[in-house]
Amino acid sequence: MINVGIIGSTGYAGSELVRLLSNHRHVCIKSVCSKSYAGNMYKNVYPNFNPSDLVCEADDMEKLAKECDVIFLALPHGEASRRVNADILDKCRIIDLGADFRLQNIDVYESWYCEHYSKDILKEAVYGLCEINREKIKGRRIIGNPGCYTTCSILSLYPLVKEGLIEPDSIIIDAKSGVSGAGRGLSAANLFCEVNESVKAYKIASHRHTPEIEEQLSYACGREITISFTPHLIPMNRGILATCYASLTSDADYDRLREAYEKYYGNEYFIRIMDKGVFPETRWVKNSNFFDVGFTVDKRTNRVIAVGAIDNLFKGAAGQAVQNMNILFGFDEKEGIGFIPPFPV
Amino acid sequence: MINVGIIGSTGYAGSELVRLLSNHRHVCIKSVCSKSYAGNMYKNVYPNFNPSDLVCEADDMEKLAKECDVIFLALPHGEASRRVNADILDKCRIIDLGADFRLQNIDVYESWYCEHYSKDILKEAVYGLCEINREKIKGRRIIGNPGCYTTCSILSLYPLVKEGLIEPDSIIIDAKSGVSGAGRGLSAANLFCEVNESVKAYKIASHRHTPEIEEQLSYACGREITISFTPHLIPMNRGILATCYASLTSDADYDRLREAYEKYYGNEYFIRIMDKGVFPETRWVKNSNFFDVGFTVDKRTNRVIAVGAIDNLFKGAAGQAVQNMNILFGFDEKEGIGFIPPFPV
Amino acid sequence: MINVGIIGSTGYAGSELVRLLSNHRHVCIKSVCSKSYAGNMYKNVYPNFNPSDLVCEADDMEKLAKECDVIFLALPHGEASRRVNADILDKCRIIDLGADFRLQNIDVYESWYCEHYSKDILKEAVYGLCEINREKIKGRRIIGNPGCYTTCSILSLYPLVKEGLIEPDSIIIDAKSGVSGAGRGLSAANLFCEVNESVKAYKIASHRHTPEIEEQLSYACGREITISFTPHLIPMNRGILATCYASLTSDADYDRLREAYEKYYGNEYFIRIMDKGVFPETRWVKNSNFFDVGFTVDKRTNRVIAVGAIDNLFKGAAGQAVQNMNILFGFDEKEGIGFIPPFPV
Amino acid sequence: MINVGIIGSTGYAGSELVRLLSNHRHVCIKSVCSKSYAGNMYKNVYPNFNPSDLVCEADDMEKLAKECDVIFLALPHGEASRRVNADILDKCRIIDLGADFRLQNIDVYESWYCEHYSKDILKEAVYGLCEINREKIKGRRIIGNPGCYTTCSILSLYPLVKEGLIEPDSIIIDAKSGVSGAGRGLSAANLFCEVNESVKAYKIASHRHTPEIEEQLSYACGREITISFTPHLIPMNRGILATCYASLTSDADYDRLREAYEKYYGNEYFIRIMDKGVFPETRWVKNSNFFDVGFTVDKRTNRVIAVGAIDNLFKGAAGQAVQNMNILFGFDEKEGIGFIPPFPV
Repeated sequence: MINVGIIGSTGYAGSELVRLLSNHRHVCIKSVCSKSYAGNMYKNVYPNFNPSDLVCEADDMEKLAKECDVIFLALPHGEASRRVNADILDKCRIIDLGADFRLQNIDVYESWYCEHYSKDILKEAVYGLCEINREKIKGRRIIGNPGCYTTCSILSLYPLVKEGLIEPDSIIIDAKSGVSGAGRGLSAANLFCEVNESVKAYKIASHRHTPEIEEQLSYACGREITISFTPHLIPMNRGILATCYASLTSDADYDRLREAYEKYYGNEYFIRIMDKGVFPETRWVKNSNFFDVGFTVDKRTNRVIAVGAIDNLFKGAAGQAVQNMNILFGFDEKEGIGFIPPFPV
Repeated sequence: MINVGIIGSTGYAGSELVRLLSNHRHVCIKSVCSKSYAGNMYKNVYPNFNPSDLVCEADDMEKLAKECDVIFLALPHGEASRRVNADILDKCRIIDLGADFRLQNIDVYESWYCEHYSKDILKEAVYGLCEINREKIKGRRIIGNPGCYTTCSILSLYPLVKEGLIEPDSIIIDAKSGVSGAGRGLSAANLFCEVNESVKAYKIASHRHTPEIEEQLSYACGREITISFTPHLIPMNRGILATCYASLTSDADYDRLREAYEKYYGNEYFIRIMDKGVFPETRWVKNSNFFDVGFTVDKRTNRVIAVGAIDNLFKGAAGQAVQNMNILFGFDEKEGIGFIPPFPV
Repeated sequence: MINVGIIGSTGYAGSELVRLLSNHRHVCIKSVCSKSYAGNMYKNVYPNFNPSDLVCEADDMEKLAKECDVIFLALPHGEASRRVNADILDKCRIIDLGADFRLQNIDVYESWYCEHYSKDILKEAVYGLCEINREKIKGRRIIGNPGCYTTCSILSLYPLVKEGLIEPDSIIIDAKSGVSGAGRGLSAANLFCEVNESVKAYKIASHRHTPEIEEQLSYACGREITISFTPHLIPMNRGILATCYASLTSDADYDRLREAYEKYYGNEYFIRIMDKGVFPETRWVKNSNFFDVGFTVDKRTNRVIAVGAIDNLFKGAAGQAVQNMNILFGFDEKEGIGFIPPFPV
Repeated sequence: MINVGIIGSTGYAGSELVRLLSNHRHVCIKSVCSKSYAGNMYKNVYPNFNPSDLVCEADDMEKLAKECDVIFLALPHGEASRRVNADILDKCRIIDLGADFRLQNIDVYESWYCEHYSKDILKEAVYGLCEINREKIKGRRIIGNPGCYTTCSILSLYPLVKEGLIEPDSIIIDAKSGVSGAGRGLSAANLFCEVNESVKAYKIASHRHTPEIEEQLSYACGREITISFTPHLIPMNRGILATCYASLTSDADYDRLREAYEKYYGNEYFIRIMDKGVFPETRWVKNSNFFDVGFTVDKRTNRVIAVGAIDNLFKGAAGQAVQNMNILFGFDEKEGIGFIPPFPV
């Protein structure tokens, strides 16, 4: 049994995390913190939690560090880097669901986000993409939990890049996300009638998950690469679908691609490689920690089209955070997140 | 650990049941049966089950009865009454999610449905509305699992009828359901573009859940009562909201109504009585076994308006079936169904 | 050709009105006013208007009154009664889409809304429910355009009340509305993820459209009546469905009810009485000025269930406002609003 | 006033066409034909048409050709090529909404579809993409009305290809469509609960609109080109968004791209070029004949991302068919389709 605290617990990702941790057998939630709702019963903020007796607290990082084995942060970018310090890390582990400890390249971070306030700590952070970095995660004190789009995009392409089966600079990722990715903040653009019955692209060629995908795929590739990434907003609550395009290198064909996926993902419980001719749909991963991937080779254009799907709040945020915690503390990696998801839901 | 079989496992309710039972710690699924999909991997019918290795089988009730402690039936009406017999019941318990063992009045059953083929067995069946009939359920061999609309409607009004706080013949229930209640069968009326962005009433004054509500509320009332019930189709996957109207009897007021709800439901984990001025919304019960109820007294009209909400596939079908199984076999009633549900989902 | 101005043109109802007036053959839009967007191109507020060259103006009622034959007001309650005065009315007609000129009983208005600032003018206002008050509308200087729920509710029951076929005090109206009824204002409750995949009742026994329905049905009845009215929010953009319940008086039966509907609505283009056994669905009236009504007699309970449907922004607001304008100025009543609506949409 | 007939009038596209033609000032509908619904009132198939007195007829092409100035065909592929012949064309014009007269290359047609039965007639057919082929359309006897995905895709890229600003073989089109594109036919995959709250790609690298896009862009390019095209299904009724990627040729930059769009589309009423930094959303074109296009240059990857949006049933089918008719018969091109569309809807 470990003690955990959650800072930023009343956003959608934070709430999903509190839910998963509440249902987790080896976890005792010591504290759920929320700047906006401090003093409120958590079940009044999220009535699905009724009859939970959790109460939102103002966050006191020092106090939490003393009481908890791990603190989860779900904060706007810039906040985590401001608050985490060596003293905190001496006392407890940090799993940060925000962007501050994902990018190792500080210049890149600062050009896409803002100033970074804990550059030293960043060096020991590990990118918590569990299936790729599992061994590095173990024993680490601070984990940068990957973004939703990035989890889906990187996992869709990693084996192909790693094995040199695609031209890295030909990569184009066209991603579609449900609306919960935009969070619970007030914005006219996210009103029901503005989102429903419509689809749009946004932050074209400028979304902050772009450098995160690039950094990780560059590690896989062995050299720096640049990609195109376009997010879209879909009128549904949850789910991300990433449709990825890349030109094949000369000797790549369907079987070699399949081998690559099998090599890296064949033993992964949370990765399901679709049969030939079958492609992911977000409904099958909704409310689960699964990443589904399917792909085809288009001989007419000599391209691979690989399609990945996740639940953005689950594998794309809270579920992967729990998976990281399970790895960190030596629990069964599936604990609390390994169930069969519902359908239709 | 008990052995279970599911007949009719590939409808939406059947699938939800297989899911809940797969995630249940004390259950071993011996067999999932499906007339339409016999021979197929269950995960090919419902890819959310991937990587489950369940295979759909043709149903052999006799064989199942020998192997299983309990068989769940999720069949069209008339099918269960044709198949269940004394011999089967000697060997295993039956939890029937269909309509055949819900109504004790055979004339009423036959006038709303069709001929009933096991009238003797019907006599020993119990109506599996757990919070009302818990004690009667224990030790019973066959359980008629309540309908979705009926669960929500009866639970919304039971304390008021039982305590004589409302005029029974003034009851009007206006219910709204998500589309999964219509099942997975092919019907033009259930195509996305025909349902989306629209709302309709259907089977007005003629829906088969009407006599089921009447029979149970008549028991509570101590005399036969007749109600108005109107179902509506809402463009969403899951959830039922029942808005119930009734005239108050002379000495009824808000406090007395509240006392009644507290008296019958105050200790029920799966029933959440809303605070004064708060009313249920289906999003808070979605993917859970909770029944939420809120009510107000309208002094202008001397009526109570009570609003109940459930997840039609969960508390309204598979979840309550598991709850009945938990009661039958002496498990913790929350086992496998007692978790905090996700939001937004 | 008449000149028109719209004050409050950038809410959903205001925008629908600008659209209909833009497409109207006998109308010249002199001015679209908006407090929030003064100075902006209208097409930047609502890009569906592109390439319209309308520009939002700050509203100057005096100036508008001089330039326009009619001014439409789509303002929060209390605003219209503050601004309309005898001087304005000497110069132009007013069609108010808000609540200020709907209720003749000022005490009722002030107890449900706020102080009323133009009580004298209220006396000459007519309730613009076109099919009922057509003759009274002609020649009037100021029209209180009915609310969305009220249009649907009153039209559903008017013939039955007028002909004494139902017990007035038994009336219960359970109404369901799309989200556009809540307007374009920022509210967390109207974010996509909070509304989508859920249904709820709100303002139970306390919605402001209740006295409006009561006043009009009281006129029809010849005595004051009190009703129950419950609005619900449905995850769709547009549409209202009103399911209305009432006890039949002694000699009422299906045929007499049908006669009553035919008597009052048989010649109305915008009212479609469904065939026996057929009931309205909001999809068939969406984006149209039609009011559809169907009904059945439930002999078991001696009640009628009458179901009405409209598009809340069209017949429930802007469309009926245009219909009122057509009546006022002697245009064909269908002009600009009489087309066949799209499906699916 | 011209006489028109519609064969295949009860699919979604056919119905949209009947609606637009019903509202068209210069059109008299002589006949709406439907194999499935012959003998039925059209308003019973589509109650939004109530009170129209149109009756579905069995189709008799010969009879129609005598009575009509133009016949619209909305049939499964292979049907139109079987029925249209020289005799028919001597009597009336044909606007075919299906695929049979779109591709000039018969080998390509036959490899993607089926045998073609009127190869001679195909030669005189023109591809009815109005903004590109307006002059060729005038005076033609038979028009192949473009597909929905193709209209959106070709229009998004045409100026760039035509002006040599992008590498033709680098083109990737990632398209998202509402569900009405799948038609009204019964398919489990299109049930509400299977589509709602999910997104998927389908017919990856194998959708039949691919060769149609290729043929037209090849004409623009002056040589044969091959593209990647991936359609996706979005949980909404209407709308297509095409996100198009291509590498820029050496001297291309934002301004040159903008010039190209302005050159070809600057005077087109139905094409709206978004301001810099603004991108289309399907909600703004829904229920209209508009094609919206926005684009950006991504200097990091030297690619253009161009995004186009249409209403698939309107500009993508019936609306463009009416536009073609307007061109053919010398009506104002906006007649019957030039109104401001509603929002939200």
